[in-house]
Amino acid sequence: MLAEIITIGDEILVGQIVDTNSAWMAQQLNLIGIKVKQITSVSDDAEHIIEALQLAQKRAKVIFITGGLGPTKDDITKLTLARYFNMGFRRDEETLHHIEGMFARMNRPMIDLNRQQADVPDGCTVIQNKNGTAPCMWFESDGNIIVSMPGVPFEMMYLMGEEILPRLKNAFKLPFIVHKTILTANIGESFLATEIEAIEDSLPNHIKLAYLPKLGQVRLRLSATGDDEQILKQEVEDFAQKMIAHIKPYVVVEDDIALEKAVLDVMESRGLSLSTAESCTGGYIAHLLTKHPGSSVVYKGGAVTYANELKQSILGVSETTLIDFGAVSEETVREMAKGALNHFKTDYAVSVSGIAGPGGEAPGKPVGTVWIAVASKNGIVSKFFQFGNKRIQNIERSASAALVMILNELKRNTI
Amino acid sequence: MLAEIITIGDEILVGQIVDTNSAWMAQQLNLIGIKVKQITSVSDDAEHIIEALQLAQKRAKVIFITGGLGPTKDDITKLTLARYFNMGFRRDEETLHHIEGMFARMNRPMIDLNRQQADVPDGCTVIQNKNGTAPCMWFESDGNIIVSMPGVPFEMMYLMGEEILPRLKNAFKLPFIVHKTILTANIGESFLATEIEAIEDSLPNHIKLAYLPKLGQVRLRLSATGDDEQILKQEVEDFAQKMIAHIKPYVVVEDDIALEKAVLDVMESRGLSLSTAESCTGGYIAHLLTKHPGSSVVYKGGAVTYANELKQSILGVSETTLIDFGAVSEETVREMAKGALNHFKTDYAVSVSGIAGPGGEAPGKPVGTVWIAVASKNGIVSKFFQFGNKRIQNIERSASAALVMILNELKRNTI
Repeated sequence: MLAEIITIGDEILVGQIVDTNSAWMAQQLNLIGIKVKQITSVSDDAEHIIEALQLAQKRAKVIFITGGLGPTKDDITKLTLARYFNMGFRRDEETLHHIEGMFARMNRPMIDLNRQQADVPDGCTVIQNKNGTAPCMWFESDGNIIVSMPGVPFEMMYLMGEEILPRLKNAFKLPFIVHKTILTANIGESFLATEIEAIEDSLPNHIKLAYLPKLGQVRLRLSATGDDEQILKQEVEDFAQKMIAHIKPYVVVEDDIALEKAVLDVMESRGLSLSTAESCTGGYIAHLLTKHPGSSVVYKGGAVTYANELKQSILGVSETTLIDFGAVSEETVREMAKGALNHFKTDYAVSVSGIAGPGGEAPGKPVGTVWIAVASKNGIVSKFFQFGNKRIQNIERSASAALVMILNELKRNTI
Repeated sequence: MLAEIITIGDEILVGQIVDTNSAWMAQQLNLIGIKVKQITSVSDDAEHIIEALQLAQKRAKVIFITGGLGPTKDDITKLTLARYFNMGFRRDEETLHHIEGMFARMNRPMIDLNRQQADVPDGCTVIQNKNGTAPCMWFESDGNIIVSMPGVPFEMMYLMGEEILPRLKNAFKLPFIVHKTILTANIGESFLATEIEAIEDSLPNHIKLAYLPKLGQVRLRLSATGDDEQILKQEVEDFAQKMIAHIKPYVVVEDDIALEKAVLDVMESRGLSLSTAESCTGGYIAHLLTKHPGSSVVYKGGAVTYANELKQSILGVSETTLIDFGAVSEETVREMAKGALNHFKTDYAVSVSGIAGPGGEAPGKPVGTVWIAVASKNGIVSKFFQFGNKRIQNIERSASAALVMILNELKRNTI
């Protein structure tokens, strides 16, 4: 079954916000066997919204609309939907009651604009939005289902997860889509393709292979569509293992999880702890790790030592090393890792020092120069990287390289 | 003038990657007076790509296509464009030369798949992609310009910035679009709307106001379109100042910059330094600060103290405090801020301790309980927050609240 997503809001079209909702919705829909055919972002403009809806109704069975439900004048989704479906308005008492409750709990006065959020097109089914004041509206028309939700991510996520997906699962008998992802590092997309060409050519029609490159990593994703979930899983697993046999040295993890989650999982399973000592990555590695629930079992903490004084005072890097070799050097990064290991009392410590740019280059050390070290009871390994001249990209690449280095050390070592 | 963006790739439609390219492109286009009418994400499917192109050509003058240019079989953009424009293929010698050079510099062997990236539809103009192997292709057809670029963000950004935007500026006489953004905190969208209703109603047709809410912050954006940049700037500024006069206590910064950049700017202008002591935000505040070039002038570093032992050893929080009041308490967060101030020797220090969830709740301390403190020579202020039950959102809200607290302290204090 096909779905489409229409996101409404000038803020997306002027680039002031990035649409993260659509990716999340697509993931959730795929899990229950609904494929997203198209994602369309349109402005807060009635004619444009109506055109997008008409076209989407021709291509897909279910249409999800996010955004444009705020209480202010620039939000016109509700008015436009009433016009599109030729409906009048009614005040939904349950919604009004819920909004009044929210304001009472926050001890804030209500104004007419807030009450008007309880007005809905009279032919829709209202789904209560527990996390906000804009109601979710479910329309059925010409064999299509059209669901309008607020654009605030956690409101949308709650509504999709708790209300809409269960209703869709009940309403349709859906085929299964099974995905399997293999995360690789340190090999280019075209080399991977050559290594597994024969396997790719042998894939049956209902199994697709995609290459998803990202900063030194390539994700391979096999997707199979059909009616028998168990058979699909087995087929996908068989093809995945055939591919892995050809590219084993480059496989980081056989799962659709983030690199840092792979580090956390391996370390947790072996009862190991980790700390960080970051200079150019500025806390980004710590953030990646701590985004994940339960990370505290493995990750104990770390230091962000932008200033040299902190490299000395928190991590115990010697002044002589900093003077003789500079902050971005193998010697410094090794002392940082060792300092983190000793001071933070963890089994592993990772350290990064580099020049993220655009400023900061030194003779022989252009922007993008990065040293990374991993320390453990097994010793210290350190590695040099020369990335490019973009700051954010250098931060992300360094973090990614550091995580791959930890995983490689974990593979090499028994403790 | 209107533009559209078409992003091609199953990886967007299955939600495996978030489309960040479109927002960046839209921002850049707005700056030169080109409005994005629609953003459309379609799959690696020839018929679907062609349908999207035909519709976009009816609505917009310029169409930007990203993605689907990799060397592997799932990338079909180039073949589809040749078919759409009814063109044959030619091997572009300059592109081939460039690809050969890239492989030689990386000391990697070339395979046929790599050479084939130099094959382009014979009626297009090739724009060299210095950062990658997939060439950028510029087509002109029926009065439209269609530009196909790789989907890898830094390749696309380079091509847009250095090649495509300058060519568009030369080719068209464009109207100006002037934006002005006011960032507010601690006031709801509908209350803001009521406060400035009269001003909003008095806006002329060529000036639009948008509300962009995000986790305790609301951005107000005025956008004016016209031919005289100076007049537009003046008009927008006048309306902005009228609005600010009504909502002054809630205005954080009068600029379209991130909250943390506002902190860095104010502190840099006053020669002040900052350190961080993060527990539940896990390095996210450090990351937000260090994302910005030049942040090292203000930000010296900090600690991520997930484990209580590190709160003691790095920040000097007393064991008694941790035992008597717990890690998530006013007493602990104040000692964390004071410890960071003293040990990291900065003018200001900010600390956060809370329960991000989903686990970790304690009696009287549900998930979402957060304490934040800011320490400086002026003393220590601390504040309690009760956020929700979503981990990522709690991390982001805590960071946002911490940054607003620093800004408020900077407003209150002279040093």
